[in-house]
Amino acid sequence: RREEMAKSTQLIDNEVFRAYATYTVIVLLKMMLMSLITAYFRITRKAFVNPEDTESFGKGESAKKYLRTDPDVERARRGHLNDLENIVPFVGIGLLYALSGPELSTALLHFRIFAGARILHTFAYLIPLPQPGRGLSWAVGYAVTISMAYNVLKRAWLL
Amino acid sequence: RREEMAKSTQLIDNEVFRAYATYTVIVLLKMMLMSLITAYFRITRKAFVNPEDTESFGKGESAKKYLRTDPDVERARRGHLNDLENIVPFVGIGLLYALSGPELSTALLHFRIFAGARILHTFAYLIPLPQPGRGLSWAVGYAVTISMAYNVLKRAWLL
Amino acid sequence: RREEMAKSTQLIDNEVFRAYATYTVIVLLKMMLMSLITAYFRITRKAFVNPEDTESFGKGESAKKYLRTDPDVERARRGHLNDLENIVPFVGIGLLYALSGPELSTALLHFRIFAGARILHTFAYLIPLPQPGRGLSWAVGYAVTISMAYNVLKRAWLL
Repeated sequence: RREEMAKSTQLIDNEVFRAYATYTVIVLLKMMLMSLITAYFRITRKAFVNPEDTESFGKGESAKKYLRTDPDVERARRGHLNDLENIVPFVGIGLLYALSGPELSTALLHFRIFAGARILHTFAYLIPLPQPGRGLSWAVGYAVTISMAYNVLKRAWLL
Repeated sequence: RREEMAKSTQLIDNEVFRAYATYTVIVLLKMMLMSLITAYFRITRKAFVNPEDTESFGKGESAKKYLRTDPDVERARRGHLNDLENIVPFVGIGLLYALSGPELSTALLHFRIFAGARILHTFAYLIPLPQPGRGLSWAVGYAVTISMAYNVLKRAWLL
Repeated sequence: RREEMAKSTQLIDNEVFRAYATYTVIVLLKMMLMSLITAYFRITRKAFVNPEDTESFGKGESAKKYLRTDPDVERARRGHLNDLENIVPFVGIGLLYALSGPELSTALLHFRIFAGARILHTFAYLIPLPQPGRGLSWAVGYAVTISMAYNVLKRAWLL
């Protein structure tokens, strides 16, 4: 039992893995924040999609007018979906990258640039910033993930 | 070779990791079930989005009328997307949490409440239950994930 | 420090885990490719969703006409979402499966069939191929993931 516990804690004691854990939690929490932002816009803009969500605003026809789309709600939802499309590959490829034995400084560079790029991407989407602000922040995160993928494949195939 | 095999089985022999594996498989299978529910509604409601999917119902104009949206299909799809938005953070943060050496009883509490909340969320969405049924089940799963994230960051930063 | 580094590299030195790493990176890169395909169709079809994305095409009303949906863009987006719905369970369940100590040949069979099925699914969606081409390729990937899930639960519960 003691040995098992020791085993279970070894990965998290590795510096690169700890860095991966930290930045993965940060970007996943950032992604989760999009749910709250969408809910905030749905409530303040009174724009819902499920009839049962509008019942507190009145019965029947008076509630039906809140079943509508709103530009701010849709924008937050697009930002959320873009997070899913980009943060899922980071979490999966990043785990394998962290386990492939990279230098700590190189790994930190990858993780920090990705996290920074995704946070910038959210601001660029929600404010919104003029292009190419959002496009560039997306591309930087994309390139970091490609770089980690290349390192994993190089390591997995050379052995 | 034998040593490798032994190494590969150690994580899954750890009790907390085994609990994580069990509940992660359960919630991912539940998420995959949404594909079947969407397909069931698409076929029974005859509501498709791709022209090639309607060809078995006839050619040309007679098939075109099945290219439409249906409230039940859209509801199942929203439930599926909500699963993606919430189960992805659970799987990623939960893995790091399981590796951070929590007490087995605490970890089981987290995993079981999350799995129960997401199963309730699906029923609340599909039946649908009046609010705040769906909202509460969503919030419970969200809170469990935040709690695990806090524990990972505390552990990753203290070392 | 040296011991930590050794520890961090052990998982990736395991043959089954290395196979998992390789195929996970492949399917995640394939999923990321959907972003580029969507962007390609948005630019060539001039079909955008964010007003700030159309500003390089002119100011005011002349740019507004590019805020529209396009069948090819929507098709690529649906393929991307279908990837998310199916590749996320593969990455999560596949990791646990790889750690559950399967035979290398059995594991490779699972990973290769899944990767092949998802690549076929993308071609079937984008060309598009007549049904049941897309349906079958989806079902094969789905069945592989169920098979891995069954093996993880069997292993996690027997111990």
